Amino acid sequence: MSLFDTPSGPAKVRLVVAYDGTGFRGFAAQPSQPRVRTVGGALGGAIEKVLRHPVELVCAGRTDAGVHARGQVVSFEAEPGLDPWRLQSALNSMLGPEIVVRSADLVEPGFDARRSATARTYEYTIVNRTAADPFLARYAWWVAEPLDLTLLRLAADVFIGEHDFASFCRKGPEGSSTVRRVLAARWRDEGDGVLRFEIRSSAFCWQMVRSIVGTLVEVGIGKRAPGELLAVLCAADRAAAGQLAPPHGLCLREVEY
Amino acid sequence: MSLFDTPSGPAKVRLVVAYDGTGFRGFAAQPSQPRVRTVGGALGGAIEKVLRHPVELVCAGRTDAGVHARGQVVSFEAEPGLDPWRLQSALNSMLGPEIVVRSADLVEPGFDARRSATARTYEYTIVNRTAADPFLARYAWWVAEPLDLTLLRLAADVFIGEHDFASFCRKGPEGSSTVRRVLAARWRDEGDGVLRFEIRSSAFCWQMVRSIVGTLVEVGIGKRAPGELLAVLCAADRAAAGQLAPPHGLCLREVEY
Repeated sequence: MSLFDTPSGPAKVRLVVAYDGTGFRGFAAQPSQPRVRTVGGALGGAIEKVLRHPVELVCAGRTDAGVHARGQVVSFEAEPGLDPWRLQSALNSMLGPEIVVRSADLVEPGFDARRSATARTYEYTIVNRTAADPFLARYAWWVAEPLDLTLLRLAADVFIGEHDFASFCRKGPEGSSTVRRVLAARWRDEGDGVLRFEIRSSAFCWQMVRSIVGTLVEVGIGKRAPGELLAVLCAADRAAAGQLAPPHGLCLREVEY
Repeated sequence: MSLFDTPSGPAKVRLVVAYDGTGFRGFAAQPSQPRVRTVGGALGGAIEKVLRHPVELVCAGRTDAGVHARGQVVSFEAEPGLDPWRLQSALNSMLGPEIVVRSADLVEPGFDARRSATARTYEYTIVNRTAADPFLARYAWWVAEPLDLTLLRLAADVFIGEHDFASFCRKGPEGSSTVRRVLAARWRDEGDGVLRFEIRSSAFCWQMVRSIVGTLVEVGIGKRAPGELLAVLCAADRAAAGQLAPPHGLCLREVEY
Protein backbone atom coordinates (compact mmCIF):
# COMPACT_ATOMS: atom_id res chain seq x y z
CA MET A 1 0.00 0.00 0.00
CA SER A 2 1.34 3.43 -0.94
CA LEU A 3 1.64 6.33 1.44
CA PHE A 4 -1.15 8.14 -0.31
CA ASP A 5 -3.62 5.29 -0.46
CA THR A 6 -6.96 6.40 0.96
CA PRO A 7 -9.65 3.84 1.79
CA SER A 8 -12.42 6.40 1.11
CA GLY A 9 -12.54 5.91 -2.66
CA PRO A 10 -10.99 7.96 -5.48
CA ALA A 11 -8.59 10.77 -4.60
CA LYS A 12 -8.99 14.34 -5.82
CA VAL A 13 -6.05 16.33 -7.20
CA ARG A 14 -5.75 20.11 -7.21
CA LEU A 15 -3.30 21.81 -9.57
CA VAL A 16 -2.35 25.47 -9.62
CA VAL A 17 -1.44 26.31 -13.19
CA ALA A 18 0.13 29.31 -14.96
CA TYR A 19 -0.05 29.74 -18.71
CA ASP A 20 0.71 32.12 -21.53
CA GLY A 21 -2.62 32.06 -23.37
CA THR A 22 -1.23 33.57 -26.61
CA GLY A 23 -1.11 30.32 -28.54
CA PHE A 24 -4.34 28.79 -27.17
CA ARG A 25 -8.02 29.04 -28.02
CA GLY A 26 -8.93 29.41 -24.36
CA PHE A 27 -9.02 26.90 -21.52
CA ALA A 28 -12.00 24.72 -22.38
CA ALA A 29 -11.04 21.60 -24.32
CA GLN A 30 -12.87 21.13 -27.62
CA PRO A 31 -12.91 17.36 -28.13
CA SER A 32 -14.96 17.69 -31.33
CA GLN A 33 -12.20 19.85 -32.86
CA PRO A 34 -8.98 18.01 -32.00
CA ARG A 35 -6.84 20.42 -34.04
CA VAL A 36 -7.86 23.42 -31.95
CA ARG A 37 -5.21 24.02 -29.29
CA THR A 38 -6.67 24.68 -25.84
CA VAL A 39 -5.02 24.83 -22.41
CA GLY A 40 -7.42 22.24 -21.01
CA GLY A 41 -6.83 19.97 -24.00
CA ALA A 42 -3.03 20.16 -23.66
CA LEU A 43 -3.08 19.79 -19.88
CA GLY A 44 -5.69 17.00 -19.86
CA GLY A 45 -3.81 15.13 -22.58
CA ALA A 46 -0.58 15.29 -20.57
CA ILE A 47 -2.33 14.15 -17.36
CA GLU A 48 -3.92 11.20 -19.18
CA LYS A 49 -0.52 10.20 -20.59
CA VAL A 50 1.01 10.19 -17.10
CA LEU A 51 -1.89 8.54 -15.25
CA ARG A 52 -2.96 6.24 -18.12
CA HIS A 53 -6.66 6.76 -17.53
CA PRO A 54 -9.14 9.38 -18.79
CA VAL A 55 -9.67 12.45 -16.56
CA GLU A 56 -12.29 15.15 -16.54
CA LEU A 57 -10.82 18.54 -15.66
CA VAL A 58 -12.75 21.17 -13.75
CA CYS A 59 -11.23 24.68 -13.77
CA ALA A 60 -11.95 27.69 -11.57
CA GLY A 61 -12.25 30.16 -14.47
CA ARG A 62 -12.82 29.23 -18.11
CA THR A 63 -10.47 31.77 -19.65
CA ASP A 64 -11.18 32.86 -23.26
CA ALA A 65 -8.83 32.63 -26.24
CA GLY A 66 -5.65 34.67 -25.63
CA VAL A 67 -6.29 35.21 -21.90
CA HIS A 68 -3.47 34.27 -19.52
CA ALA A 69 -3.37 32.79 -16.01
CA ARG A 70 -0.90 32.91 -13.14
CA GLY A 71 -3.08 31.01 -10.69
CA GLN A 72 -5.71 28.96 -12.54
CA VAL A 73 -6.92 26.09 -10.35
CA VAL A 74 -7.83 22.74 -11.86
CA SER A 75 -9.25 19.66 -10.15
CA PHE A 76 -9.82 16.07 -11.26
CA GLU A 77 -10.35 12.60 -9.83
CA ALA A 78 -7.41 10.24 -9.68
CA GLU A 79 -6.67 6.81 -8.35
CA PRO A 80 -5.58 6.60 -4.73
CA GLY A 81 -1.84 6.21 -4.33
CA LEU A 82 -0.95 9.10 -6.61
CA ASP A 83 2.25 11.00 -5.79
CA PRO A 84 1.37 14.65 -6.58
CA TRP A 85 4.99 15.81 -6.62
CA ARG A 86 5.90 13.24 -9.26
CA LEU A 87 2.81 14.15 -11.27
CA GLN A 88 3.86 17.82 -11.19
CA SER A 89 7.37 17.17 -12.43
CA ALA A 90 6.20 14.76 -15.12
CA LEU A 91 3.67 17.33 -16.38
CA ASN A 92 6.18 20.19 -16.34
CA SER A 93 8.71 18.21 -18.35
CA MET A 94 6.01 17.32 -20.92
CA LEU A 95 4.23 20.67 -21.25
CA GLY A 96 7.12 23.02 -22.01
CA PRO A 97 7.25 26.68 -21.09
CA GLU A 98 3.74 27.82 -22.16
CA ILE A 99 1.94 25.89 -19.40
CA VAL A 100 3.52 25.41 -15.97
CA VAL A 101 2.07 23.46 -13.06
CA ARG A 102 3.02 25.57 -10.03
CA SER A 103 1.77 23.10 -7.45
CA ALA A 104 -0.06 19.78 -7.17
CA ASP A 105 -1.85 18.53 -4.05
CA LEU A 106 -4.18 15.77 -2.96
CA VAL A 107 -7.35 17.30 -1.57
CA GLU A 108 -10.55 16.04 0.04
CA PRO A 109 -12.88 14.19 -2.37
CA GLY A 110 -15.55 16.91 -2.18
CA PHE A 111 -13.23 19.59 -3.61
CA ASP A 112 -14.30 21.12 -6.94
CA ALA A 113 -12.10 23.81 -8.50
CA ARG A 114 -15.11 25.74 -9.75
CA ARG A 115 -17.82 25.21 -7.14
CA SER A 116 -15.57 25.33 -4.06
CA ALA A 117 -14.01 28.69 -5.06
CA THR A 118 -15.02 31.64 -2.88
CA ALA A 119 -13.31 34.44 -4.85
CA ARG A 120 -11.37 35.04 -8.05
CA THR A 121 -8.96 37.88 -8.84
CA TYR A 122 -8.24 38.98 -12.39
CA GLU A 123 -5.72 41.59 -13.44
CA TYR A 124 -5.72 43.62 -16.63
CA THR A 125 -2.55 45.35 -17.83
CA ILE A 126 -2.41 48.46 -20.00
CA VAL A 127 0.67 50.12 -21.48
CA ASN A 128 -0.15 53.81 -21.75
CA ARG A 129 2.66 55.28 -23.85
CA THR A 130 2.96 56.93 -27.25
CA ALA A 131 5.06 53.97 -28.44
CA ALA A 132 4.26 50.30 -27.72
CA ASP A 133 6.44 48.03 -25.55
CA PRO A 134 7.77 44.96 -27.40
CA PHE A 135 8.15 43.01 -24.13
CA LEU A 136 4.56 43.58 -23.03
CA ALA A 137 3.01 43.20 -26.50
CA ARG A 138 1.68 39.73 -25.62
CA TYR A 139 0.55 40.61 -22.10
CA ALA A 140 -0.81 44.17 -22.15
CA TRP A 141 -3.19 46.37 -24.12
CA TRP A 142 -1.32 49.27 -25.66
CA VAL A 143 -3.38 52.48 -25.31
CA ALA A 144 -1.62 55.44 -26.95
CA GLU A 145 -4.10 58.15 -25.86
CA PRO A 146 -3.21 59.51 -22.40
CA LEU A 147 -5.30 57.98 -19.60
CA ASP A 148 -6.30 60.01 -16.55
CA LEU A 149 -5.62 57.75 -13.57
CA THR A 150 -7.78 59.84 -11.22
CA LEU A 151 -10.78 59.37 -13.51
CA LEU A 152 -10.02 55.65 -13.90
CA ARG A 153 -9.98 55.25 -10.12
CA LEU A 154 -13.18 57.24 -9.58
CA ALA A 155 -14.94 55.18 -12.23
CA ALA A 156 -13.71 51.83 -10.87
CA ASP A 157 -15.38 52.51 -7.51
CA VAL A 158 -18.81 52.29 -9.17
CA PHE A 159 -18.42 48.54 -9.67
CA ILE A 160 -17.73 47.63 -6.04
CA GLY A 161 -20.62 45.87 -4.30
CA GLU A 162 -23.49 43.68 -5.48
CA HIS A 163 -24.93 44.71 -8.86
CA ASP A 164 -26.64 43.25 -11.89
CA PHE A 165 -23.78 43.25 -14.42
CA ALA A 166 -26.04 42.52 -17.43
CA SER A 167 -24.57 45.57 -19.25
CA PHE A 168 -21.08 44.06 -18.90
CA CYS A 169 -21.81 40.40 -19.63
CA ARG A 170 -22.14 38.39 -22.77
CA LYS A 171 -25.39 36.45 -22.44
CA GLY A 172 -25.06 33.05 -20.79
CA PRO A 173 -27.70 30.27 -20.80
CA GLU A 174 -31.33 31.49 -20.71
CA GLY A 175 -32.40 32.53 -17.22
CA SER A 176 -28.87 32.59 -15.73
CA SER A 177 -28.30 35.44 -13.31
CA THR A 178 -25.88 38.28 -14.07
CA VAL A 179 -25.85 39.53 -10.48
CA ARG A 180 -22.33 39.46 -9.02
CA ARG A 181 -20.65 40.82 -5.89
CA VAL A 182 -17.43 42.71 -6.65
CA LEU A 183 -15.19 42.81 -3.57
CA ALA A 184 -12.41 45.06 -4.89
CA ALA A 185 -11.62 47.02 -8.06
CA ARG A 186 -8.49 49.15 -8.12
CA TRP A 187 -5.86 50.58 -10.44
CA ARG A 188 -2.16 50.38 -9.67
CA ASP A 189 0.39 52.61 -11.35
CA GLU A 190 3.44 50.39 -11.91
CA GLY A 191 5.52 53.20 -13.39
CA ASP A 192 6.77 53.83 -16.94
CA GLY A 193 3.20 53.98 -18.27
CA VAL A 194 2.20 50.52 -17.06
CA LEU A 195 -1.26 50.55 -15.41
CA ARG A 196 -2.73 47.46 -13.79
CA PHE A 197 -6.41 46.98 -12.96
CA GLU A 198 -7.19 44.40 -10.27
CA ILE A 199 -10.71 43.12 -9.75
CA ARG A 200 -11.80 40.59 -7.13
CA SER A 201 -15.26 39.04 -7.05
CA SER A 202 -16.95 35.90 -5.76
CA ALA A 203 -17.59 35.07 -9.42
CA PHE A 204 -17.56 36.74 -12.83
CA CYS A 205 -19.88 36.36 -15.79
CA TRP A 206 -18.63 35.90 -19.35
CA GLN A 207 -16.41 38.73 -20.69
CA MET A 208 -17.22 40.85 -17.63
CA VAL A 209 -13.65 42.04 -16.88
CA ARG A 210 -12.85 42.92 -20.50
CA SER A 211 -16.15 44.79 -20.83
CA ILE A 212 -15.51 46.74 -17.60
CA VAL A 213 -11.93 47.61 -18.66
CA GLY A 214 -13.04 48.70 -22.14
CA THR A 215 -15.63 51.01 -20.57
CA LEU A 216 -13.18 52.34 -17.97
CA VAL A 217 -10.69 53.23 -20.71
CA GLU A 218 -13.40 55.32 -22.40
CA VAL A 219 -13.63 57.23 -19.11
CA GLY A 220 -9.83 57.48 -18.84
CA ILE A 221 -9.46 59.13 -22.25
CA GLY A 222 -12.32 61.53 -21.51
CA LYS A 223 -14.93 60.05 -23.84
CA ARG A 224 -17.33 59.35 -20.93
CA ALA A 225 -17.75 60.97 -17.51
CA PRO A 226 -17.19 58.68 -14.49
CA GLY A 227 -20.73 59.58 -13.32
CA GLU A 228 -22.23 57.93 -16.41
CA LEU A 229 -21.19 54.46 -15.29
CA LEU A 230 -23.94 54.09 -12.71
CA ALA A 231 -26.49 54.65 -15.49
CA VAL A 232 -24.68 52.09 -17.65
CA LEU A 233 -24.95 49.54 -14.82
CA CYS A 234 -28.65 50.31 -14.26
CA ALA A 235 -29.45 50.04 -17.97
CA ALA A 236 -28.84 46.26 -17.78
CA ASP A 237 -28.20 46.48 -21.51
CA ARG A 238 -24.99 45.40 -23.18
CA ALA A 239 -25.25 48.19 -25.76
CA ALA A 240 -24.84 50.76 -22.96
CA ALA A 241 -21.30 49.62 -22.09
CA GLY A 242 -18.11 50.42 -24.00
CA GLN A 243 -15.97 48.36 -26.31
CA LEU A 244 -14.53 45.04 -25.17
CA ALA A 245 -10.85 45.33 -24.12
CA PRO A 246 -8.63 42.86 -26.05
CA PRO A 247 -8.07 39.45 -24.39
CA HIS A 248 -4.26 39.52 -24.24
CA GLY A 249 -4.19 42.12 -21.41
CA LEU A 250 -6.20 39.85 -19.12
CA CYS A 251 -4.80 37.38 -16.59
CA LEU A 252 -6.51 35.17 -13.99
CA ARG A 253 -4.25 35.84 -11.05
CA GLU A 254 -5.63 34.01 -8.06
CA VAL A 255 -8.50 31.83 -6.89
CA GLU A 256 -9.47 31.64 -3.23
CA TYR A 257 -11.15 28.75 -1.41
CA MET B 1 12.74 75.39 -47.08
CA SER B 2 11.78 73.08 -44.22
CA LEU B 3 12.33 73.85 -40.59
CA PHE B 4 15.02 71.20 -40.35
CA ASP B 5 16.97 72.18 -43.45
CA THR B 6 20.63 72.52 -42.55
CA PRO B 7 23.10 74.12 -44.92
CA SER B 8 25.98 72.02 -43.54
CA GLY B 9 25.35 68.89 -45.62
CA PRO B 10 23.55 65.66 -44.80
CA ALA B 11 21.75 65.31 -41.46
CA LYS B 12 22.36 62.47 -39.02
CA VAL B 13 19.49 60.67 -37.31
CA ARG B 14 19.70 58.87 -33.96
CA LEU B 15 17.04 56.29 -33.05
CA VAL B 16 16.61 54.58 -29.69
CA VAL B 17 15.07 51.19 -30.42
CA ALA B 18 13.57 48.40 -28.28
CA TYR B 19 13.01 44.92 -29.65
CA ASP B 20 11.99 41.42 -28.72
CA GLY B 21 14.81 39.45 -30.33
CA THR B 22 12.99 36.09 -30.19
CA GLY B 23 12.03 36.01 -33.86
CA PHE B 24 15.25 37.55 -35.25
CA ARG B 25 18.67 36.24 -36.22
CA GLY B 26 20.35 39.11 -34.42
CA PHE B 27 20.75 42.77 -35.33
CA ALA B 28 23.19 42.72 -38.24
CA ALA B 29 21.43 42.69 -41.63
CA GLN B 30 22.46 39.83 -43.91
CA PRO B 31 21.89 41.22 -47.41
CA SER B 32 23.25 38.03 -49.01
CA GLN B 33 20.51 36.01 -47.25
CA PRO B 34 17.33 38.04 -47.77
CA ARG B 35 15.11 35.36 -46.16
CA VAL B 36 16.96 35.59 -42.83
CA ARG B 37 15.02 37.94 -40.53
CA THR B 38 17.27 40.41 -38.70
CA VAL B 39 16.41 43.49 -36.66
CA GLY B 40 18.69 45.68 -38.79
CA GLY B 41 17.18 44.26 -41.97
CA ALA B 42 13.60 44.92 -40.84
CA LEU B 43 14.41 48.37 -39.44
CA GLY B 44 16.56 49.43 -42.41
CA GLY B 45 13.91 48.22 -44.86
CA ALA B 46 11.24 50.28 -43.11
CA ILE B 47 13.47 53.40 -43.00
CA GLU B 48 14.24 53.06 -46.72
CA LYS B 49 10.52 52.75 -47.51
CA VAL B 50 9.77 55.95 -45.59
CA LEU B 51 12.76 57.99 -46.81
CA ARG B 52 12.89 56.50 -50.33
CA HIS B 53 16.68 56.31 -50.39
CA PRO B 54 19.14 53.65 -49.24
CA VAL B 55 20.52 54.02 -45.70
CA GLU B 56 23.42 52.42 -43.90
CA LEU B 57 22.62 51.71 -40.27
CA VAL B 58 25.25 51.84 -37.52
CA CYS B 59 24.23 50.29 -34.19
CA ALA B 60 25.78 50.64 -30.73
CA GLY B 61 25.79 46.91 -29.97
CA ARG B 62 25.46 44.13 -32.56
CA THR B 63 23.17 41.84 -30.57
CA ASP B 64 23.25 38.12 -31.44
CA ALA B 65 20.32 35.92 -32.48
CA GLY B 66 17.62 35.86 -29.77
CA VAL B 67 19.11 38.73 -27.74
CA HIS B 68 16.75 41.60 -26.84
CA ALA B 69 17.19 45.37 -26.49
CA ARG B 70 15.43 48.08 -24.55
CA GLY B 71 17.81 50.88 -25.56
CA GLN B 72 19.69 49.94 -28.72
CA VAL B 73 20.96 53.09 -30.48
CA VAL B 74 21.08 53.32 -34.26
CA SER B 75 22.42 56.13 -36.45
CA PHE B 76 22.27 56.84 -40.18
CA GLU B 77 22.62 59.69 -42.63
CA ALA B 78 19.50 61.33 -44.00
CA GLU B 79 18.62 64.25 -46.20
CA PRO B 80 18.26 67.60 -44.47
CA GLY B 81 14.66 68.57 -43.85
CA LEU B 82 13.72 65.32 -42.18
CA ASP B 83 11.05 65.51 -39.46
CA PRO B 84 12.22 62.94 -36.86
CA TRP B 85 8.86 62.77 -35.09
CA ARG B 86 7.08 61.83 -38.33
CA LEU B 87 9.78 59.29 -39.13
CA GLN B 88 9.27 57.69 -35.69
CA SER B 89 5.51 57.36 -36.06
CA ALA B 90 5.76 56.07 -39.62
CA LEU B 91 8.28 53.43 -38.52
CA ASN B 92 6.23 52.38 -35.49
CA SER B 93 3.09 51.90 -37.57
CA MET B 94 5.07 49.80 -40.09
CA LEU B 95 7.16 47.66 -37.72
CA GLY B 96 4.51 46.22 -35.42
CA PRO B 97 5.05 45.25 -31.80
CA GLU B 98 8.38 43.35 -32.06
CA ILE B 99 10.45 46.44 -32.86
CA VAL B 100 9.57 49.83 -31.39
CA VAL B 101 11.34 53.13 -32.06
CA ARG B 102 11.32 54.83 -28.65
CA SER B 103 12.75 58.12 -29.88
CA ALA B 104 14.14 59.75 -33.02
CA ASP B 105 16.36 62.84 -33.06
CA LEU B 106 18.47 64.83 -35.45
CA VAL B 107 22.04 64.92 -34.17
CA GLU B 108 25.31 66.52 -35.18
CA PRO B 109 26.83 65.06 -38.42
CA GLY B 110 29.81 63.60 -36.53
CA PHE B 111 27.63 61.33 -34.38
CA ASP B 112 28.16 57.58 -34.81
CA ALA B 113 26.04 55.18 -32.72
CA ARG B 114 28.97 52.80 -32.27
CA ARG B 115 32.08 54.97 -32.12
CA SER B 116 30.55 57.85 -30.13
CA ALA B 117 29.27 55.54 -27.36
CA THR B 118 31.10 55.87 -24.02
CA ALA B 119 29.40 53.00 -22.13
CA ARG B 120 26.93 50.18 -22.64
CA THR B 121 24.79 48.41 -20.04
CA TYR B 122 23.49 44.89 -20.56
CA GLU B 123 21.17 43.02 -18.24
CA TYR B 124 20.76 39.27 -17.95
CA THR B 125 17.64 37.77 -16.32
CA ILE B 126 17.47 34.40 -14.59
CA VAL B 127 14.39 32.69 -13.16
CA ASN B 128 15.61 30.55 -10.28
CA ARG B 129 12.64 28.36 -9.37
CA THR B 130 11.80 24.66 -9.43
CA ALA B 131 9.13 25.34 -12.08
CA ALA B 132 9.57 27.65 -15.09
CA ASP B 133 7.63 30.90 -15.59
CA PRO B 134 5.53 30.98 -18.78
CA PHE B 135 5.62 34.80 -18.89
CA LEU B 136 9.41 35.02 -18.68
CA ALA B 137 10.10 32.01 -20.92
CA ARG B 138 11.14 34.30 -23.81
CA TYR B 139 13.11 36.76 -21.67
CA ALA B 140 14.90 34.82 -18.93
CA TRP B 141 17.07 31.76 -18.45
CA TRP B 142 15.32 29.25 -16.24
CA VAL B 143 17.81 27.73 -13.77
CA ALA B 144 16.14 25.08 -11.57
CA GLU B 145 19.13 24.40 -9.27
CA PRO B 146 19.18 26.84 -6.32
CA LEU B 147 21.60 29.74 -6.82
CA ASP B 148 23.48 31.26 -3.89
CA LEU B 149 23.15 35.02 -4.33
CA THR B 150 26.01 35.78 -1.93
CA LEU B 151 28.38 33.67 -4.03
CA LEU B 152 27.06 35.24 -7.25
CA ARG B 153 27.78 38.70 -5.85
CA LEU B 154 31.25 37.81 -4.59
CA ALA B 155 32.13 36.32 -7.95
CA ALA B 156 30.78 39.27 -9.96
CA ASP B 157 33.20 41.64 -8.19
CA VAL B 158 36.15 39.91 -9.88
CA PHE B 159 35.17 41.35 -13.27
CA ILE B 160 35.15 45.00 -12.23
CA GLY B 161 38.08 47.02 -13.57
CA GLU B 162 40.34 46.71 -16.61
CA HIS B 163 41.15 43.12 -17.59
CA ASP B 164 41.97 41.01 -20.59
CA PHE B 165 38.68 39.17 -21.14
CA ALA B 166 40.12 36.66 -23.64
CA SER B 167 38.72 33.78 -21.52
CA PHE B 168 35.24 35.22 -21.92
CA CYS B 169 35.31 36.30 -25.57
CA ARG B 170 34.70 34.52 -28.80
CA LYS B 171 37.65 35.32 -31.05
CA GLY B 172 37.24 38.47 -33.16
CA PRO B 173 39.43 39.50 -36.11
CA GLU B 174 43.13 38.55 -35.79
CA GLY B 175 45.02 40.94 -33.53
CA SER B 176 41.93 42.63 -32.05
CA SER B 177 42.26 43.40 -28.35
CA THR B 178 40.11 41.65 -25.73
CA VAL B 179 41.02 44.13 -22.99
CA ARG B 180 37.92 45.85 -21.63
CA ARG B 181 37.13 48.09 -18.66
CA VAL B 182 34.09 46.92 -16.69
CA LEU B 183 32.58 49.80 -14.72
CA ALA B 184 29.90 47.91 -12.77
CA ALA B 185 28.74 44.31 -12.36
CA ARG B 186 25.97 43.59 -9.87
CA TRP B 187 23.11 41.19 -9.13
CA ARG B 188 19.66 42.42 -8.16
CA ASP B 189 17.12 40.19 -6.45
CA GLU B 190 13.77 41.15 -7.98
CA GLY B 191 11.80 38.76 -5.76
CA ASP B 192 9.90 35.56 -6.57
CA GLY B 193 13.11 33.90 -7.83
CA VAL B 194 13.90 36.51 -10.48
CA LEU B 195 17.59 37.49 -10.45
CA ARG B 196 18.96 40.20 -12.69
CA PHE B 197 22.65 40.72 -13.52
CA GLU B 198 23.63 44.20 -14.71
CA ILE B 199 26.98 44.86 -16.31
CA ARG B 200 28.25 48.22 -17.54
CA SER B 201 31.42 48.63 -19.58
CA SER B 202 32.92 51.05 -22.06
CA ALA B 203 32.66 48.22 -24.59
CA PHE B 204 32.14 44.46 -24.70
CA CYS B 205 33.69 41.80 -26.87
CA TRP B 206 31.69 39.10 -28.63
CA GLN B 207 29.61 36.86 -26.32
CA MET B 208 31.32 38.36 -23.27
CA VAL B 209 28.19 38.85 -21.15
CA ARG B 210 26.76 35.40 -21.86
CA SER B 211 30.12 33.81 -21.11
CA ILE B 212 30.43 35.71 -17.81
CA VAL B 213 26.87 34.82 -16.77
CA GLY B 214 27.35 31.14 -17.65
CA THR B 215 30.49 31.07 -15.50
CA LEU B 216 28.84 32.95 -12.63
CA VAL B 217 25.97 30.44 -12.59
CA GLU B 218 28.51 27.65 -12.13
CA VAL B 219 29.68 29.53 -9.04
CA GLY B 220 26.10 30.11 -7.89
CA ILE B 221 25.23 26.40 -7.95
CA GLY B 222 28.47 25.51 -6.14
CA LYS B 223 30.32 23.90 -9.05
CA ARG B 224 33.17 26.46 -8.84
CA ALA B 225 34.51 28.57 -5.97
CA PRO B 226 34.30 32.37 -6.45
CA GLY B 227 38.07 32.53 -5.92
CA GLU B 228 38.67 30.46 -9.07
CA LEU B 229 37.43 33.24 -11.32
CA LEU B 230 40.59 35.33 -11.06
CA ALA B 231 42.55 32.34 -12.37
CA VAL B 232 40.01 31.94 -15.19
CA LEU B 233 40.52 35.61 -16.14
CA CYS B 234 44.33 35.26 -16.02
CA ALA B 235 44.29 32.10 -18.14
CA ALA B 236 43.25 34.18 -21.18
CA ASP B 237 41.88 30.93 -22.56
CA ARG B 238 38.27 30.41 -23.55
CA ALA B 239 38.35 26.79 -22.38
CA ALA B 240 38.88 28.00 -18.79
CA ALA B 241 35.48 29.74 -18.64
CA GLY B 242 32.10 28.09 -18.12
CA GLN B 243 29.26 27.34 -20.49
CA LEU B 244 27.67 30.13 -22.53
CA ALA B 245 24.38 31.34 -21.00
CA PRO B 246 21.49 31.14 -23.53
CA PRO B 247 20.85 34.30 -25.59
CA HIS B 248 17.19 34.87 -24.65
CA GLY B 249 18.06 36.05 -21.09
CA LEU B 250 20.21 38.90 -22.43
CA CYS B 251 19.06 42.45 -23.11
CA LEU B 252 20.98 45.57 -24.21
CA ARG B 253 19.48 48.05 -21.81
CA GLU B 254 21.22 51.36 -22.32
CA VAL B 255 23.96 53.08 -24.29
CA GLU B 256 25.64 56.21 -22.99
CA TYR B 257 27.28 58.99 -25.01
